[in-house]
Order: sequence, then C-alpha cells, then structure tokens
Amino acid sequence: MAAEKNTHAAPTAKDMKDIVALCKRRGFIFAASDIYGGLNGFWDYGPLGVELKNNLRDRWWRDMVVTPPIGPDGQPIEIVGLDSAIIQNPKCWEASGHVGGFNDPMVDCKESKKRYRADHLIVLSPNDGQGPWLAFDKEASADEIAQRLKKHARGRPESDYTRGQLDKTPVADFPKIIGPDAKEPGTLTEPRQFNMMFHSYAGAAAGEENKVYLRPETCAGIFLNFKNVLDSSRVRVPFGIAQIGKAFRNEVTPRNFIFRSREFEQMELEWFCHQDDVPMWFDFWVEQRKKFWESVGLPLNHLHFYDTPKADLAHYSARTIDFEYQFPFSGDGFDELEGIAHRGNFDLTQHQEFSKAKLEYMDPTDNTKRYLPHVIEPSAGLSRGVLALLCEAYTPDPNRPSGVYLNFTPAMAPKKAAILPLTAKEEHAAPATNLYLELREDFAVDLDIKQNIGKRYARQDEIGTPFCFTIDDQTNADQTVTVRERNTMAQERISLDKVHEYLRVKMKA
Amino acid sequence: MAAEKNTHAAPTAKDMKDIVALCKRRGFIFAASDIYGGLNGFWDYGPLGVELKNNLRDRWWRDMVVTPPIGPDGQPIEIVGLDSAIIQNPKCWEASGHVGGFNDPMVDCKESKKRYRADHLIVLSPNDGQGPWLAFDKEASADEIAQRLKKHARGRPESDYTRGQLDKTPVADFPKIIGPDAKEPGTLTEPRQFNMMFHSYAGAAAGEENKVYLRPETCAGIFLNFKNVLDSSRVRVPFGIAQIGKAFRNEVTPRNFIFRSREFEQMELEWFCHQDDVPMWFDFWVEQRKKFWESVGLPLNHLHFYDTPKADLAHYSARTIDFEYQFPFSGDGFDELEGIAHRGNFDLTQHQEFSKAKLEYMDPTDNTKRYLPHVIEPSAGLSRGVLALLCEAYTPDPNRPSGVYLNFTPAMAPKKAAILPLTAKEEHAAPATNLYLELREDFAVDLDIKQNIGKRYARQDEIGTPFCFTIDDQTNADQTVTVRERNTMAQERISLDKVHEYLRVKMKA
Repeated sequence: MAAEKNTHAAPTAKDMKDIVALCKRRGFIFAASDIYGGLNGFWDYGPLGVELKNNLRDRWWRDMVVTPPIGPDGQPIEIVGLDSAIIQNPKCWEASGHVGGFNDPMVDCKESKKRYRADHLIVLSPNDGQGPWLAFDKEASADEIAQRLKKHARGRPESDYTRGQLDKTPVADFPKIIGPDAKEPGTLTEPRQFNMMFHSYAGAAAGEENKVYLRPETCAGIFLNFKNVLDSSRVRVPFGIAQIGKAFRNEVTPRNFIFRSREFEQMELEWFCHQDDVPMWFDFWVEQRKKFWESVGLPLNHLHFYDTPKADLAHYSARTIDFEYQFPFSGDGFDELEGIAHRGNFDLTQHQEFSKAKLEYMDPTDNTKRYLPHVIEPSAGLSRGVLALLCEAYTPDPNRPSGVYLNFTPAMAPKKAAILPLTAKEEHAAPATNLYLELREDFAVDLDIKQNIGKRYARQDEIGTPFCFTIDDQTNADQTVTVRERNTMAQERISLDKVHEYLRVKMKA
Repeated sequence: MAAEKNTHAAPTAKDMKDIVALCKRRGFIFAASDIYGGLNGFWDYGPLGVELKNNLRDRWWRDMVVTPPIGPDGQPIEIVGLDSAIIQNPKCWEASGHVGGFNDPMVDCKESKKRYRADHLIVLSPNDGQGPWLAFDKEASADEIAQRLKKHARGRPESDYTRGQLDKTPVADFPKIIGPDAKEPGTLTEPRQFNMMFHSYAGAAAGEENKVYLRPETCAGIFLNFKNVLDSSRVRVPFGIAQIGKAFRNEVTPRNFIFRSREFEQMELEWFCHQDDVPMWFDFWVEQRKKFWESVGLPLNHLHFYDTPKADLAHYSARTIDFEYQFPFSGDGFDELEGIAHRGNFDLTQHQEFSKAKLEYMDPTDNTKRYLPHVIEPSAGLSRGVLALLCEAYTPDPNRPSGVYLNFTPAMAPKKAAILPLTAKEEHAAPATNLYLELREDFAVDLDIKQNIGKRYARQDEIGTPFCFTIDDQTNADQTVTVRERNTMAQERISLDKVHEYLRVKMKA
C-alpha cells in the first residue's frame, strides 16, 4: 500500500478549508487556546495529530540516528543525535548573524491598522499613470483583483497595469498606493526591518544584560556542540549531528494553517565533511531526502526541486536545493518543505571567532591537517511535513458515507487498525477487547465499541486507519473476523489467529 | 537484569561531581552554549543523553497512550495524547492564577550582588541576642556553618543559636543579618515577589497588549483542550489526556545540575473522573506510577512518598503525594521527581469562567447529569527522571579499568549492545559491520572499530551498555562471538546466528 500513488487532482483552496475543518473535527489540529479565541500563529496537536507527528518524527530519527544510510563507499555512515536548549547564550545569535540580520521588511497600514510583510505584497501600477496604484497580497486570486479594480478603477482590466513587488517599489511612490484593506491611497508606511526572534529575559531584571532569545532554528545548537560531540563520542569526519525540536519566529503575518506559524518544529541534520567532498555528499543527501519523503507517502511528482541560481546563493554556499510541495494554498506553485544547503564552514568560523574556542578538526591520520569542516544541511519542517502528509492523504470520495478518506501509508497512519465489535453486547465486545489487547502490544490500534458500524467505518476513513477488524456472531462460531481495507472498502474474512501476522505484513508493505 | 537491585550506598555530593563530569565526558549532558561559558539554568542533551531521555519519554508515552493500564473494573482505561503549544493566549495564565500568583520571594544582597530565594535561606539568630545573625543556604553543610561561626562569632557553637527561615523572619530584623556571601550585616533587601514565568511579545510591538508567556507547566494545554478532545474523539469520562513537552521557569537560583533548571521537560497526565470516584482513581494512579518508576530502574526503597498533610493542601484538593528520590544533593533527604495531585475541578472551573466556554460534561447515560469532572494529575519530571536514572545507575567499581559503570536497565540504556571487532582488520571489521547492520534494525547498537579492546570495554561500561559482542579470529573459524555482560564482566561465547535472539530475550528480562 505504501507504493500506491495518490492520483487525485491537485488540491485546491477549497480543499484546504475542508482539511482544516477535518483536522479540528477529528482531533488532528486545534487552534491554540481555542476557547479563548485562539492566538495568531499558534496551534495544538490533538490526539491523532500528535500520533501522526510522532510517526514522522520517529521515522526521521530512525533513518538518521538509528539506521543511518550506507555511504557512497558501501559502509554505514555515522550520525549522532542531540537535543539542545531552546534558549542559548545570546552571544550565539550575534555570531550566527540573527541578532543583526534576521529581519523581515514590514509595512503598516494607518487606515486598516493591519500589518504586512512588504515582500508578500504585490502592486499594480497603471500603465498610463492615471488613477491609484493597488496593493494586494501576493496570493490574491484573479477574482479578488478584478473586484478591487472594479471598485477603485471602474473595472479597468488588469492588462492596463504593471505588476511589481512592494519591497522593490520606491518609497516616493507609496502615496499613490491603496493598501490591501484600505479605501484611500497613501496609508502604507515605509517598510521597516523587524527582527523575527522572540526575546525574553533570563533572571529577575528585564534589562538588556538579561535579554535572551527563543531559537529561530534548531541548527545553532548543533554548531555550538560540534566540539563537545567530537570530544565525547567516537565519531570522525565525515559525520552528522541530528536534532528535532521546536523553533520560534515572530512572523508578521502567520498564515496557511500550520504552514507559517510562530511556533513550529524542525528536523535538522548538519553533515560535517571535508571541503573537497562537498559535491559528493550534497548529491548523496539530495537522493536520501527524496527517498525519505517518498517513503512516508509524498510521490516525487508532487514535489518540486528548486536549485537556487548561483547568483542568489550566499557567498559561502556552493549550492542550495529547496524541496517544495504543492500545497492546496500554493496555487500553481509550490511551497518549501525542506531545504538542503551547503553552508560552507560559515557557522563554525563565526562561532570560533566569537567564542574564541578552537573548533578546528584534526585529521586523525595526519595531525598536521587541521581544518573547519564544511557543512551540508538537510533542514526539514516537521510541522510542514505533517501538513504535507495531511494534504496528500486527503481524498474526497462521494461513494462513501464520510465523503472523504485520508490515504496515509500504514506506517504514518495514527492508528494502524480499528477493532470494532458489531454490537456492544458481551459476546462481541469481549473478543474484540481481547484482540485489541493482543494487537496493541505491537501496533497503535483503536478499540471502538459503541455506535452503528457504518458510522464507525466512516470515522476510521476520516482519520485514515488502513484496516478495520469487525467481530460478529460468526467470530464466535468459526473464529474469523472481517477485515475491511480503507482505500478499496473491500472486505474479506480471515482467521482471528492470523490478524496479528496480517497486520505485520501490511505494515512492511 | 531489570529486576536486579542496585545495592551501592546512597550517593554523595562527591558522586554528584563525578556524575556531572561523566555526563560531559561521555556525551550525556553539556552546559548549553558551553563554548560561550554556558547560560545559567540551561542544558543540552548530547548523543547519549538524548537517547536516554527518549527511552524514558517513549516508555511513559507507551504506558499511558499506546497500552494504558487495565482499570479497577478489569477493562483497559482510555487515554489520548496531546501536544499543545508552549505559547498560549495570555488569558489562559490569568485563569490558572499564574499571572497573579506564580511568584517566588526573592532577596538581593547589596554587598555580594547575589540573588537568593528567601525560602531557600535559613537564619541563625543568637539566643542571647549578642552578635550578628547569619544567613545560609538551606543546603549548607555543618562544616560550612561551623566555619562561618568561627569567622563572624569567634567560633560559638551552633547550639547558641536558633535556626529559622528567612522568609519567616520579620523585615525589622534584617539589619542584623549577614548574607550568605557577605561580610557585613544589613545587606539583604526585603523579599519581593518575582513572577517565574518567562514573558515575550507576539507581534511587532513589545507592549502589554502583545505580552505572552512561555508555559511554566504543560498541563494547562490539556485543560484548554478538554472540550476539543471530547468533541473530536470517542473518549468518555473517566479518561485521561497525556502530554510530554518543554516548560520554562525563570528560577531565581537554578541549581543541582538539571534538577532545577530554567528550561525542562514534563510528562503530565490529567485524569478526568467523577468526584465520587476520586479516592479509587487516586490510589490507582499512585500504584501505577510506582510500577512505572520501578520498571525503569528506580527501586522503591530509594524513593520516598510524601503525603501532604490535609492542612497544607489547597482548598480544592483532597490529597497530594510527592514521589521523591534520594538524589546525591538531597543529603539525608529526598527531592521531588513526580507529584500526584487531586486538583478537584479547579482548572476547568477557572477556564469556564474566564473563557465563557461551556466545559461541563454530559453523562451519556443520563443527559440530566452535567458536571465538571474532577482531575487527578500524575505530573512527572522528564529531565528529573533522566537525572534520577543517571544517579541510580552510577556505580563506582575500583575493580575495572573505567572505575565506574552505569547500571541502566537494558530498556533504558542508550545503547543496548556494542559490536567490537578485536582489531580494525578487514577479517574482524567486516563480520562486525554485518552483525551491526543486522542488529540495528531492531535495537539501538553501537559499532566501535578502532582502539584497544580494553579501552572500548571501559567506554561501554561508562555509558552503560549492557552487552558487548566481540568478533575475533575464532569468529571466522567457528561462527561464534564473545558476549561480555556489563555488570559481572563475565564473558561467554555464543553462536553468531544466536546473537539477535540472545539480545531480544535479554531486553524483555
């Protein structure tokens, strides 16, 4: 089943609304502090969401740390895990450049009191210079644009206008622009830089000397511990350090469900190697990461691999590839799921300079060779991965009562199977409970006793459970159960004592 | 091996120093931002620390969410998982009382510029009223006290003094007190309340309207989602919601390694039940939690169960029991590892009042019965659990090269086995690599190829690996390997093709 391709059409904005609603209705994802009206940019994972997220998290950790891949030389490579603190010494963020430079250009609208990222707004300027300029969110639909042209420009066609980006527009032209939620022109402020790191204070005084930051990415903790790991474990270059954890960014405009949130999770590997080996390892990791996403259920033809043009790369980087997924809100485009970057030895160089600690690696076969290793970083979003799995699995199907099912691979599904007694009567419920107790030792399974069987199947379809085992009168007569397969809804009877083996085989498929 | 009792003497402060040093040397725990001199109260988990922590985390999750215990009625109980955001709507912390009341009394010393928690200081006042009063840390040794009496009171015996607590001492007497690190009396300020929640700002303006807090405990997210969980899943009272995650407290004086840190992890269950059933479920959870800690390697005779006297309980609570462990820094006492509290329906009542959301539970068998369930909360420290496992496992042994080994249970050990070729030569390394590749599919194992075998055994002893498999010339001759058992250092030869089964059996022991 893992290899089955999802062939439904590309998801749409309408699907996105349905996905968000399903996530709340079935307990995948809730707005944080829902009963208090939520909090912009924060989300909670419900009973099924946390299982789905843990499945993806544990698969990544297993692939990286427990059974790391076989390297180009045929030998298993070395990767160790790490779990560093969210709050680190603030000097770390000076060294990394985040205190000085982790900024987004932000504009405010004096009329609507709303705030926008300048690089997320487009501007239509009239080719003949007549009439106002109009600013839109870059994701605005053709329909929204037409409506505003009707309102502010008597319905002139968009072809009368030139499209530009607000952050590339001279400030002198701002007085002509009508903001996305404004009626009058000239209400947008100049873009100003806004540091995206959340700050706090460690210690009683809320002064500059106690200022600390919530990490905006998990990789920093890896570079900080490069020397500690080398000194305490048996790894030698090339090797990797892997970390999964939360990061925080004070996004100006959180949006698109859990895609751009202020609190999120990352899965990051820093692969340390000699500069000469960068091209080989870069290709290696691109291939490995493709295999990973394919194995958890994202077909490669729904992904896009964006190779950043040389001219746009940072000076220390030879290459960066973004893995992008066709989210329902991506329109005709794609949005980032993972980035694989060659970071040179920029981070170790900076930390060596700022901390004065010696971070050079000594080649154990030649102690005259000392160098700062180069780094290849496959940096994946765990929260974004969960969203991609949900979007990919979402399969409308008018031919079943639920109208939709989630086509998760068995390994990613929050529940591998549901055990459903046909009725709540003892003769059905007791053997069902016994089967549940046997299966749960090895698989995450659900026991659901009450309600009519159709409704219970519908629920399992909506939460993406690949198999349902039903216990009925015949079970007591001949020790068989019905197994119902999620995608095909096909049912067959199998022997009660074969259920465990049946599930074991299906999980490996 | 899991059932073996650790019989070494109670650990001492000296042991604590050794444990901290071993944790750094072998890659369990490092000071956060070590190369920048650290950051008070923050710690990073290294390659082995993260595996140990994950083992404890996953065992708790499994026991709670995947295979929850059988209830008093013989049926499996229902518990679902959750993962809520660290940052929630600030109104949540008004409702819970944390904004108003989550305070520690704090004093500053004008001379030493140090800060203390008033409830952590004791004061010796002379019975005859002659001479200065002396303040000490409550953990000060008899030796330290004698030394300061020698210095400030010409060596008068402690029996000439009355011992009191600083936070119970009238402020009018403060001018007589010499602070713990001061030379002159009268340098301690009045205690003032200090809110222990870290705050930050969500959104661009750092004003009161954007103020948010880092959660000081994970349970709040559970209460916030009580209704969402009921509405989206099939659970019915009694049931539980379990969560593992980070929490933050701006401790005035972080201390004792990872025991009292500013960033830490909790494992919390909120068990919702009818008020009438509180005594039954309270006893149930106390028993379950005892079994848990015993199963991961803490013998019950190293734990202390503190039943809070009625008079000291909050008004809404019928009972609270603290599980305390004899940490090396606990002296003759114990320090808290887990608390099991009856919280009444205080939290749901508060959130219902502040949010105006209806949180009452309707009994499905009688819809005239509506009530706010009572809560029993087993709240365990994950970071503290890791520390307890490390302290318990720490076993000095002068009869082995490492001088010490870590006596983890196989299930908690970061590495279950090490595969060690006798030499790095191909005829040893190749079969060792093959064995490693076979075993790692089912167990966390280490392959360590270079260095003399004695040093490699010593390393595995220090990191607590229960079994080492050594591949030598005889392996190629008769397909056997040497297995060395950590605690006894006994060696025996077993067949290469029996190694997997050997390990599987030992893991279940």
